[in-house]
Amino acid sequence: MNSSGHLTTDDYVTGIRSGDRGIMGRAITLIESRAPHHRREADALISALLPFSGTALRMGISGIPGVGKSTLIETFGTLLTGRGLKVAVLAIDPTSSRSGGSILGDKTRMEKLAADPLSFIRPSPTSGHLGGVARTTRESVIVCEAAGYNVILIETVGTGQSETCVADMVDVFLLLILPNAGDELQGIKRGILELADIVAVNKVDNQDDPAARQTCQDYRCALNIVGRTTPSGWKTPVLPISALRNQGLETLWDTIQAYHTLQKSSGTLEARRQQQKHAWMWSLVQDRLDTLFREHPDVRRRLPGIEADISRGTLDPSKAAEELLSAFIA
Amino acid sequence: MNSSGHLTTDDYVTGIRSGDRGIMGRAITLIESRAPHHRREADALISALLPFSGTALRMGISGIPGVGKSTLIETFGTLLTGRGLKVAVLAIDPTSSRSGGSILGDKTRMEKLAADPLSFIRPSPTSGHLGGVARTTRESVIVCEAAGYNVILIETVGTGQSETCVADMVDVFLLLILPNAGDELQGIKRGILELADIVAVNKVDNQDDPAARQTCQDYRCALNIVGRTTPSGWKTPVLPISALRNQGLETLWDTIQAYHTLQKSSGTLEARRQQQKHAWMWSLVQDRLDTLFREHPDVRRRLPGIEADISRGTLDPSKAAEELLSAFIA
Repeated sequence: MNSSGHLTTDDYVTGIRSGDRGIMGRAITLIESRAPHHRREADALISALLPFSGTALRMGISGIPGVGKSTLIETFGTLLTGRGLKVAVLAIDPTSSRSGGSILGDKTRMEKLAADPLSFIRPSPTSGHLGGVARTTRESVIVCEAAGYNVILIETVGTGQSETCVADMVDVFLLLILPNAGDELQGIKRGILELADIVAVNKVDNQDDPAARQTCQDYRCALNIVGRTTPSGWKTPVLPISALRNQGLETLWDTIQAYHTLQKSSGTLEARRQQQKHAWMWSLVQDRLDTLFREHPDVRRRLPGIEADISRGTLDPSKAAEELLSAFIA
Repeated sequence: MNSSGHLTTDDYVTGIRSGDRGIMGRAITLIESRAPHHRREADALISALLPFSGTALRMGISGIPGVGKSTLIETFGTLLTGRGLKVAVLAIDPTSSRSGGSILGDKTRMEKLAADPLSFIRPSPTSGHLGGVARTTRESVIVCEAAGYNVILIETVGTGQSETCVADMVDVFLLLILPNAGDELQGIKRGILELADIVAVNKVDNQDDPAARQTCQDYRCALNIVGRTTPSGWKTPVLPISALRNQGLETLWDTIQAYHTLQKSSGTLEARRQQQKHAWMWSLVQDRLDTLFREHPDVRRRLPGIEADISRGTLDPSKAAEELLSAFIA
């Protein structure tokens, strides 16, 4: 560290490797910064940390607001730290820029876990589009892994896009649902159920409750048809739990571990992570190209007229695309 | 027509508007051509035909090979022509370039319909990537509508992508499934069931057959959770049919008409078509940008090294994307 308090890449690496949560927090703040010189520093840091990453169990937790994600993270995270595991909690919430707050903005709903020396909880950044937030979350995972965290929980909330995004960066994707709610109330977005490695029905105080049994049954049935079947033969289970009453969480953890072990022994974990990294690069390229295109002055100038002509039926979408592309390329 | 047999745009329009199937065929051949001067002629033709399009019921038919799509089109198409409706059959089969054949390459499986003066059957082109095939199919729809066809059936086969592509160009998306098959045998790709407006269980000779009843029941259950609910309140029905024995096809047609009427009266048909046209333009732009990027000499030169570094874990996907984009922009 120099006299101004500025940390060098080496300072960051040493601090993070020693598990210093203050330095971890500063590193993630650096990662979240959009200033070009911070970006360069962050790139150097991530490159330096990459060799120490890849060691944790990365888990995504998704479900509509009110399903009990924070409560689950509090109880489940505490169960894990109780077993000596270091638990990091991150979040992807591209909507937080609108609501002005963050799903993890205050840690009041995770009081016990927040006070736990084996935990690290990082509020989601309060602004940024999905692509940017996803990038910082992926890089934050690397920071947490380099700091020796064993389990990374990534919480997300309900825009189908952010859920797909999280599913694409984790080893295990857990979907939380409510018993006793109408199908539409569940807000299951297109394709989300098919991404789930494990489905947990939360707020089940009594496993014999007919509504809870029916919900489990309905989801098992739906998963029979649309659920993912991994090359290793994993079939998405549906587990009744109560995060608030700490019921079913041991079984949930056993199930997660069984799946992770199966993934590792069958080689699908390594394959999934490799595939995620390459897909991630291409999705960044695509996002950026799309932005370059839409922000191109000639495209912006011509787009309103072209879209109006399509709506009126006087211009074919195929020809419209060619006109816009010509404007972009010229 | 000039002395060389070359048709002008006016010749095409007149021929198509009079329902001349020979001219329709030549127009679609022109649309399928990749030669730049043909492309320009095709663009002019599509522009001239656009005012006469948008009139038909556009229907996509999807399902794995062996589910009975051709048999259904033969029987169902004949039922419709028997009611005085003009029926056009198109196909999207991006795999045909690999197999060297076309799903409609010979019309032997649609003998009766092929001989019907009220039908027009167009084999899918035997080459081309999905984007190109989709474009020609969309433009072929315009040709058929300008020729006064009332129902356009678009057949597709099994790569999740081509099914999404067809769902994005039709008013009604019908998914055909088999009774009595294991879930995995059905080959239901991610998100496909959620696109279906109607599901038909084919090869059900006896509606009381327990296996058929169970399949219908299973799919109704899955649709309860992942099925689309349209703004107009349509819930995807599951109908048992036998295309071969001509059972259940009247009910299928009644259901299709009921859905189409609901779409029209609620305004969702117009909204869906508008949305499809704009989405289609952006998907063409994205496809083309992607191609431009991947074919850029500097990107091609650097890509193998960058992908290898990602695999080795020495390069972060985010930084990799930036390096490739710099190469493209410079």
